[in-house]
Amino acid sequence: MGAGETPETDHSGVRVWLVPTPVGNLGDITLRAIEVLRGADAVACEDTRRSGALLAHLGIARPLVRLDAHTMSRAPQVLSRYPRLAYVSDAGSPGVSDPGSELVAAALSLGGRVEALPGATAFVPALVLSGLDSARFTFEGFLPRSGRERKERLDAVATRTETSLLYESPHRLHATLQDLIATCGPERRASVSRELSKRFEETRRGPLSELADYFAGTVRGEVVVVVAGRPLGGLLPGQSAPDYPQMAEGWTRQGHDVREVRTLLQGAGLRKNDAYGLALSAAANVTSSVAASVAPSVGTEAPTDQAGNTSD
Amino acid sequence: MGAGETPETDHSGVRVWLVPTPVGNLGDITLRAIEVLRGADAVACEDTRRSGALLAHLGIARPLVRLDAHTMSRAPQVLSRYPRLAYVSDAGSPGVSDPGSELVAAALSLGGRVEALPGATAFVPALVLSGLDSARFTFEGFLPRSGRERKERLDAVATRTETSLLYESPHRLHATLQDLIATCGPERRASVSRELSKRFEETRRGPLSELADYFAGTVRGEVVVVVAGRPLGGLLPGQSAPDYPQMAEGWTRQGHDVREVRTLLQGAGLRKNDAYGLALSAAANVTSSVAASVAPSVGTEAPTDQAGNTSD
Repeated sequence: MGAGETPETDHSGVRVWLVPTPVGNLGDITLRAIEVLRGADAVACEDTRRSGALLAHLGIARPLVRLDAHTMSRAPQVLSRYPRLAYVSDAGSPGVSDPGSELVAAALSLGGRVEALPGATAFVPALVLSGLDSARFTFEGFLPRSGRERKERLDAVATRTETSLLYESPHRLHATLQDLIATCGPERRASVSRELSKRFEETRRGPLSELADYFAGTVRGEVVVVVAGRPLGGLLPGQSAPDYPQMAEGWTRQGHDVREVRTLLQGAGLRKNDAYGLALSAAANVTSSVAASVAPSVGTEAPTDQAGNTSD
Repeated sequence: MGAGETPETDHSGVRVWLVPTPVGNLGDITLRAIEVLRGADAVACEDTRRSGALLAHLGIARPLVRLDAHTMSRAPQVLSRYPRLAYVSDAGSPGVSDPGSELVAAALSLGGRVEALPGATAFVPALVLSGLDSARFTFEGFLPRSGRERKERLDAVATRTETSLLYESPHRLHATLQDLIATCGPERRASVSRELSKRFEETRRGPLSELADYFAGTVRGEVVVVVAGRPLGGLLPGQSAPDYPQMAEGWTRQGHDVREVRTLLQGAGLRKNDAYGLALSAAANVTSSVAASVAPSVGTEAPTDQAGNTSD
């Protein structure tokens, strides 16, 4: 165990450790995180007051340097003064939904070596506690607060078949649950976790409509919303399934042959084999309805389909 | 800090703690994980030999019970014997890509209380070290080894605009990189991380083709592959963009009015406003080309479009 075991392959002497910190319970920090924080030249952080309290709790006295989204351009100077730099975000693993990734790029561009220590995140416990499918999932972070990009992200959550994970602030939770109901429908399964790892940790599971009722008032603590994927073949609110058979028959009547109808159906979203089957049955249906409608007047004349084949 | 702070709201006395364990470096375990393992009635695990070695390293002597995917049906009996049960997987956070989620369901159905401790995963450090967009990402876990479902998952990786994370075993890495090249194209940015948090940890970044060359031989250690999302508007190998203008003109020539063409274009994947604009311009183009082609022979007669409007 320990940072001393890792090989020194960098040429600049610059080393950056991204160090995960607790998301709530101060015990959720690893032995190696403590060791790295203690051994670094300095600890860079988003908020010196917040990270200073953590270091004090751990009994670690190292210089603290602010390096957040607004000051990240100072990374090269900080690294030249403190070439063995630990980086912590406000909570959880630096580099996911926070400015750590820019520091990684700065250190690598200087020829330095970067390590990301495994450790706490808020979304993994929330996913596991949701009871929803955890085999595949998409992390969305915080949604944009308004506008077209928010709508697009909500549509993506509604449409994908994987479980989705969202961060939300407590005073915006109810509005976001309402928006999710509008895009995913009230019956979509979901869960809301708040104050994870803290004394009053709570995870509530159920359909979105129930969660919106339950969390109608103000809640405390940062929130993770987990939304089940769209059931296969399930329709979204206001969505009606394309009437592929009707489309196929329409194109067949207009004179497209089976191959062309298949291509048009693929363009409209069907798989190749499904499109081919539907194109074939449309050709058969159109031919037989032509046969039925022309039979009384034409008598014994055999109707032909668009490709010139005689039916029956 | 500590498990003692959490409220006892269950009625059965059953409590389950999902405890993350190191993915490589034995120092990557949290203070609270050690405390919970030490205080539990027993530790359930996938592999008693592996988890026994971890407990021995930590100086913890608790009963070990095997509870893996094949024996998970025994969860109720195990919980009745050891109502305060810690659960660890072979490595990382239980419940993501392993059987922990079934134990959660069993404990909740008994009216018990479940806590998921924040801690180590392999995919978060791999994502951060990849240098790729970490604002949104999809975790795919291990791909199916063959067949239609593997193809569908590879297509999903190629198509989505979010970063994708895959686990892979070392002897299958090269084949999976080749499959990714086939679906995403050789230029797609990616990274491969192996032996994360261990002595010979390595992260290699570059286009898929370079990574496939570099990892052509056998590698050691479990692997995380991170694949950049599809560039917006980018085409996949063998894919040509639907020729929407041509489709629109085709339908217009067949006699569909602007509203019908718009609906057909939406069915083929266009947004409503884009579809409307294209339907309008198709109507205009078809009308003017009709005008051009009929002009020599028809002389002064004004051509009309499908809706019966006179052009010009």
